[in-house]
Amino acid sequence: MALNPIPDLLDALRESLVGVTDGQVAQYIPELAHAEPGWFGLALATLDGHVYASGDADRPFTLQSVSKPFVYALALTDRGLDEVVSRVGLEPSGEAFNATRLEPGTGRPPNPMVNAGAILTTSLVDDGFPRILAGLEAFAGRVLGVDERAYESEVETGDRNRAIAYLMRTAGSLRADAEQSVRRYFRQCAIQVTARDLAVMSATLANGGVNPVTGVQVVTRDTASHVLTVMATCGMYDFAGEWLLRVGLPAKSGVSGGITGALPAQLGIGLFSPPLDERGTSVRGIAACEELSARFGLHLMRPPARTASAVYLTENGDRLLVRGLQGDFGFAAAEALTRDVAGHATQGRLLVLDLDRVGRLHPVAVHLLGTLIERLAAYGMTTVVADVNRRGLLPQAHREFPGLDAARHWCDASLLRA
Amino acid sequence: MALNPIPDLLDALRESLVGVTDGQVAQYIPELAHAEPGWFGLALATLDGHVYASGDADRPFTLQSVSKPFVYALALTDRGLDEVVSRVGLEPSGEAFNATRLEPGTGRPPNPMVNAGAILTTSLVDDGFPRILAGLEAFAGRVLGVDERAYESEVETGDRNRAIAYLMRTAGSLRADAEQSVRRYFRQCAIQVTARDLAVMSATLANGGVNPVTGVQVVTRDTASHVLTVMATCGMYDFAGEWLLRVGLPAKSGVSGGITGALPAQLGIGLFSPPLDERGTSVRGIAACEELSARFGLHLMRPPARTASAVYLTENGDRLLVRGLQGDFGFAAAEALTRDVAGHATQGRLLVLDLDRVGRLHPVAVHLLGTLIERLAAYGMTTVVADVNRRGLLPQAHREFPGLDAARHWCDASLLRA
Amino acid sequence: MALNPIPDLLDALRESLVGVTDGQVAQYIPELAHAEPGWFGLALATLDGHVYASGDADRPFTLQSVSKPFVYALALTDRGLDEVVSRVGLEPSGEAFNATRLEPGTGRPPNPMVNAGAILTTSLVDDGFPRILAGLEAFAGRVLGVDERAYESEVETGDRNRAIAYLMRTAGSLRADAEQSVRRYFRQCAIQVTARDLAVMSATLANGGVNPVTGVQVVTRDTASHVLTVMATCGMYDFAGEWLLRVGLPAKSGVSGGITGALPAQLGIGLFSPPLDERGTSVRGIAACEELSARFGLHLMRPPARTASAVYLTENGDRLLVRGLQGDFGFAAAEALTRDVAGHATQGRLLVLDLDRVGRLHPVAVHLLGTLIERLAAYGMTTVVADVNRRGLLPQAHREFPGLDAARHWCDASLLRA
Amino acid sequence: MALNPIPDLLDALRESLVGVTDGQVAQYIPELAHAEPGWFGLALATLDGHVYASGDADRPFTLQSVSKPFVYALALTDRGLDEVVSRVGLEPSGEAFNATRLEPGTGRPPNPMVNAGAILTTSLVDDGFPRILAGLEAFAGRVLGVDERAYESEVETGDRNRAIAYLMRTAGSLRADAEQSVRRYFRQCAIQVTARDLAVMSATLANGGVNPVTGVQVVTRDTASHVLTVMATCGMYDFAGEWLLRVGLPAKSGVSGGITGALPAQLGIGLFSPPLDERGTSVRGIAACEELSARFGLHLMRPPARTASAVYLTENGDRLLVRGLQGDFGFAAAEALTRDVAGHATQGRLLVLDLDRVGRLHPVAVHLLGTLIERLAAYGMTTVVADVNRRGLLPQAHREFPGLDAARHWCDASLLRA
Repeated sequence: MALNPIPDLLDALRESLVGVTDGQVAQYIPELAHAEPGWFGLALATLDGHVYASGDADRPFTLQSVSKPFVYALALTDRGLDEVVSRVGLEPSGEAFNATRLEPGTGRPPNPMVNAGAILTTSLVDDGFPRILAGLEAFAGRVLGVDERAYESEVETGDRNRAIAYLMRTAGSLRADAEQSVRRYFRQCAIQVTARDLAVMSATLANGGVNPVTGVQVVTRDTASHVLTVMATCGMYDFAGEWLLRVGLPAKSGVSGGITGALPAQLGIGLFSPPLDERGTSVRGIAACEELSARFGLHLMRPPARTASAVYLTENGDRLLVRGLQGDFGFAAAEALTRDVAGHATQGRLLVLDLDRVGRLHPVAVHLLGTLIERLAAYGMTTVVADVNRRGLLPQAHREFPGLDAARHWCDASLLRA
Repeated sequence: MALNPIPDLLDALRESLVGVTDGQVAQYIPELAHAEPGWFGLALATLDGHVYASGDADRPFTLQSVSKPFVYALALTDRGLDEVVSRVGLEPSGEAFNATRLEPGTGRPPNPMVNAGAILTTSLVDDGFPRILAGLEAFAGRVLGVDERAYESEVETGDRNRAIAYLMRTAGSLRADAEQSVRRYFRQCAIQVTARDLAVMSATLANGGVNPVTGVQVVTRDTASHVLTVMATCGMYDFAGEWLLRVGLPAKSGVSGGITGALPAQLGIGLFSPPLDERGTSVRGIAACEELSARFGLHLMRPPARTASAVYLTENGDRLLVRGLQGDFGFAAAEALTRDVAGHATQGRLLVLDLDRVGRLHPVAVHLLGTLIERLAAYGMTTVVADVNRRGLLPQAHREFPGLDAARHWCDASLLRA
Repeated sequence: MALNPIPDLLDALRESLVGVTDGQVAQYIPELAHAEPGWFGLALATLDGHVYASGDADRPFTLQSVSKPFVYALALTDRGLDEVVSRVGLEPSGEAFNATRLEPGTGRPPNPMVNAGAILTTSLVDDGFPRILAGLEAFAGRVLGVDERAYESEVETGDRNRAIAYLMRTAGSLRADAEQSVRRYFRQCAIQVTARDLAVMSATLANGGVNPVTGVQVVTRDTASHVLTVMATCGMYDFAGEWLLRVGLPAKSGVSGGITGALPAQLGIGLFSPPLDERGTSVRGIAACEELSARFGLHLMRPPARTASAVYLTENGDRLLVRGLQGDFGFAAAEALTRDVAGHATQGRLLVLDLDRVGRLHPVAVHLLGTLIERLAAYGMTTVVADVNRRGLLPQAHREFPGLDAARHWCDASLLRA
Repeated sequence: MALNPIPDLLDALRESLVGVTDGQVAQYIPELAHAEPGWFGLALATLDGHVYASGDADRPFTLQSVSKPFVYALALTDRGLDEVVSRVGLEPSGEAFNATRLEPGTGRPPNPMVNAGAILTTSLVDDGFPRILAGLEAFAGRVLGVDERAYESEVETGDRNRAIAYLMRTAGSLRADAEQSVRRYFRQCAIQVTARDLAVMSATLANGGVNPVTGVQVVTRDTASHVLTVMATCGMYDFAGEWLLRVGLPAKSGVSGGITGALPAQLGIGLFSPPLDERGTSVRGIAACEELSARFGLHLMRPPARTASAVYLTENGDRLLVRGLQGDFGFAAAEALTRDVAGHATQGRLLVLDLDRVGRLHPVAVHLLGTLIERLAAYGMTTVVADVNRRGLLPQAHREFPGLDAARHWCDASLLRA
């Protein structure tokens, strides 16, 4: 068993939702209709480039509407915020993804997350589809393919999107050819990704535009924050308000069953499960996001603490590993500590966790650190805790001392005995 | 001159906007029409209870729509999230504050920030107006009065709100008496506050429901985050999307010229300037929020760093003050450090800032810390910087050393020489 | 058995629909809920004041929305078309009777047949309810009572109408007190009538504003035609188009089960049967109107003949042209006569126009025939008129005689002299 | 000078409006933009096939939206009312001609006069464009051409109509190919007509579907009345209610400046003047229609007389009752006669009905009079009919004679015998 409990947590979360059989696989084109309802993958990318994956996280599917925020990022890059905003609005429409309402006077679609706005956004990216594909590859950090059969099917059935494009032509907001714009949009929707890709793509947005795996600055910090904002207010269509309340992550879903989500400065999430609810969003995907948000404390409006949590390494001898913790620990900080400690684990070593300056441990942090302590014990490594206030924050530890000096003293003695 | 530069920053910001003379003072009741266009106050409350204020920050005005999120918090407390959501929706309506659209079938108003939703929310608070007043006093941390003349004027002119209430009666969503509900809502709008109050009230939401000045837990952590979420998506009506993009703070405005805003786990803001734009939001208030967000790095989607910034005190002798910095520093962390150091300032002392573990200093942090260093120098206190990488992050410091040991060594020698 | 088969026809029609048991009696107030589903009355009033009645044609019920066109007629009388149209629109809304949409900018309700328009219309009648009651009594030709219990029930349950009134107050279109206007409207709805009354009331509209039973000119000919027009386009709410296609009569229904209908210049219809369809219109009432329209050939777009009033040639000798006119002459008939005479014109001939059986000459007929007479004179052809009543209908004629015999006598003598 | 003053009246009307220079010629395609603002023609067709024309009544222009009611008539002919109504609604939409709203659930466009409804209607005509062209030629009574350049321009600029067609495809209401349907509609709009044609075309509708010039039955009487009804409620888009009030004629306008109007059973009108108001309707055309309606007494709700066809009493002795009938008998006239005769009934009397000048007896008149005759017989009163043409209109009569003299002769003999 690996020391790091996070993969197990993700597996457990995924398994707890496998039994959810609500929802219907999209039927309007054969390429989506052939998806198996049981497919279910999830992935989580940290901002130092580590990706956790579970289930069908490497099974390819078409991006569909999940492409919208990333192509919006490319349009912002090519045209600048002011021009893009003059062509596509920023307001949640309270309407369905395929609504046809345009802003009176300007003809602007309400926002870039509904189909109208996405088609217009696509027309604003310079140099056409090759640039779009290259941009999305930079977000994913790898070469991506296009499902040409899905593309052809969309071309055949996409009359509503044609209607929308022609309405925007008439309103003067779409200046490119309608059929060509719609086809480019269909092609972008047919790009193939995996849940792992979606996690890295949103982690790139959460990371100020820098792909945390490749280190490439895909878009600027400002563009990344603009895109996250629009995902937060408009990404889930007429479900945006409740989504932000219950899940608290900027996110975007697609009709193939994918969801991408990001917690700014924290991490990116990718989900894939084809059965959709009546709004066209993955049923298991929503449930998994709600669970991740609740269990892992990932909510924009509920940061783990007012003084941000942190880890610092105070000392590091051969036999003794000392880590001082400070602030309130949520998932991201606990994850970082867990991985750091696991990377330094050696049989026979002693670990001291100094909790004096820790405020509050979110339950996910207690669970992660507690599991780590138990696994270290099984591996042959003892953990002790120092806390002047003796709060018993980590009961899984071998002992708790009223301060770092006392803890060190015991450790020194213990090491001498060994 | 005080050592802490933040009051000067707020004064400068306020003065830079005094010349903005756009907008009209609300005219529909005499009590609002009599406001002077020049009144302008702002305040900023930290989560350890310190309040910075500038200009007319203590001039009383009526709460108006700024009351909505706080009364929503009380309704959530009294009825629980599920019941409240079954009666008032969560979705941005993309419509004006006084729109009459209700959800087909349920008769729910779209969200608690439009008038319809606010009137219904008010009817959900137990025990009527005394409870509402007491709840808002707990948010503000002081006893509040009601402007009875403003209330009477609203009663006389409030036909649209009556229309809305009767529509909700008809739809079955409002179960209380229409006229009584509207009057209770008018009375809540007539509660008198100051910009300082608004800062403390939103800081209470940002602080997990605990008033940072009084220490009272006004609402639960969950309720506070729910309210902040709804403010983020619906607080600025049909301007919500652009507001969140440009300012990035959950906020709520009122027709008397007040704006309250919060950055979760960071701070609360209060603004007051009566001239309104065509949407009914304070013109200088919007400008001040945009400036605060840009200058101070306060944006929900643009946290200063991926590893939250922090301060820790490594040592503190009589003559020597040593502060180790870690992570990326934005406004909140720089403010905390500034106040901490200013509070320990003694003529002749030496200050060592250890920047080894610092990632990035947001410009506001450079400005704040640099100004602090200059003022300390004028006061008679020398600051040196330690940084293994000699990055020159704080050029205002007296000297920069390649590490804490070198800095301490120089300090010890320097103190001996003194 | 009476010689006149019409009462039997009406009885047979009524009996053929007694078995229709669809629909629900209105339940929202006890006074309507207590109606028996089996009640069914119908009446038909001719323009010379005869009323045929069948079934429960004398059972009283409350007017409800059937009051709207008649009160609209009173408002037109008191304020004139221009002022009324500036306050209440004329366009079908395609919406339900209780829709709240007002015209942007003006705040006008869409038309006087929806509740909003009716409440506003009521506020335009001078001198309040006594004038409304007196006006409706003049339409019905008898003293009417008010069901005070129905009125009180409406007052208790009429929140949607209050909402509408307050919205119009806010929009500036309703200038009277909202509660007072709504109560006056409720009272007008509670006036008690019978199916017989409804037939006479609409016959008054069909008869150019003259009550055909009492002979009283209740409103002007123009007002009557204006009201009929608005009934045709807006009287059946969002069912108006299909109603006009299938029934072809301007009509108005009410929630108590009444329907009034009119065929201009032909007759008035009154129906009463409480069970309503989902739109709130009497089920048997609709069926009866469809049957009456189909069987009796009552359809606005399907008049019985292309030549309505007509011309006949009584005699035609070499030197004498005699034309007898019958009925009321409008443009079409005058045109036909003019062209006919012009085609038979010969210098030296005499023309006799027998006007005995002529009712009314529309000004365009006077103008056309007068001009014809003048031109015939210039051409060398003399025209004389015969009219027992010597009404001087065509002053351009050479002479007028008190009958055809006298005219012929003079012509014979005149021809002998030539 | 011609004896008939009607041409002069039309000329004077036209000249009185030449000075109206408001409005703009349609600019969106060159073929419309090149029209001269001064062009102004009008025509009036009677139901016996005479056409009065004035000004540019023979100048060709493209039909545009004026084509809609006539193609609707063809669709009703090909598919029947029920199928057509199941595909295209009948309700005025209160919206502009190019609105995109479709009925929820069915996807039906609101009515056949808006573009959506017209495109769908066009798709319902069997055998494509040749049938449409032939049908419109039958309405006009002559061979018509197509302006191919106008058609090509519409094809290039018609994106909004494409949008509408694709929306209807998506909604499932349009089952034909979108681009092909739109092109067929554009081609029908490009058919060239004159004001004279428009007068004959609407006279055909007013004449029960029979072209009054050619005598051809183009559509059935029912279809003609259905089309007139829909023109009355929907023909002038969101101006329909006010149009019917002020003008009182079912009508349809087009963007090339044409208007066609009809007064059922009376006449047809054609107008042509290119400058349009902001709604896209000919400014002079509207003014001319208002003037024609007011001066000539042409208003659906204001027929020239309450007794349209009528009854006259020729003689009345003790034993003999003679009634001469004239015109076409519908319900109202038959009722009056029935009541009159019934009031004069005496056992042993003879009744002579002179039908020489009767045109048509509506079935209800045959039924009423036939029943009367049968009951008179049972009562002891014999009825005979006089009709030069021996049409057998009232088979229930005792005998039919070839003229009044013969009937009287038989009666005298019969009375002597008694």
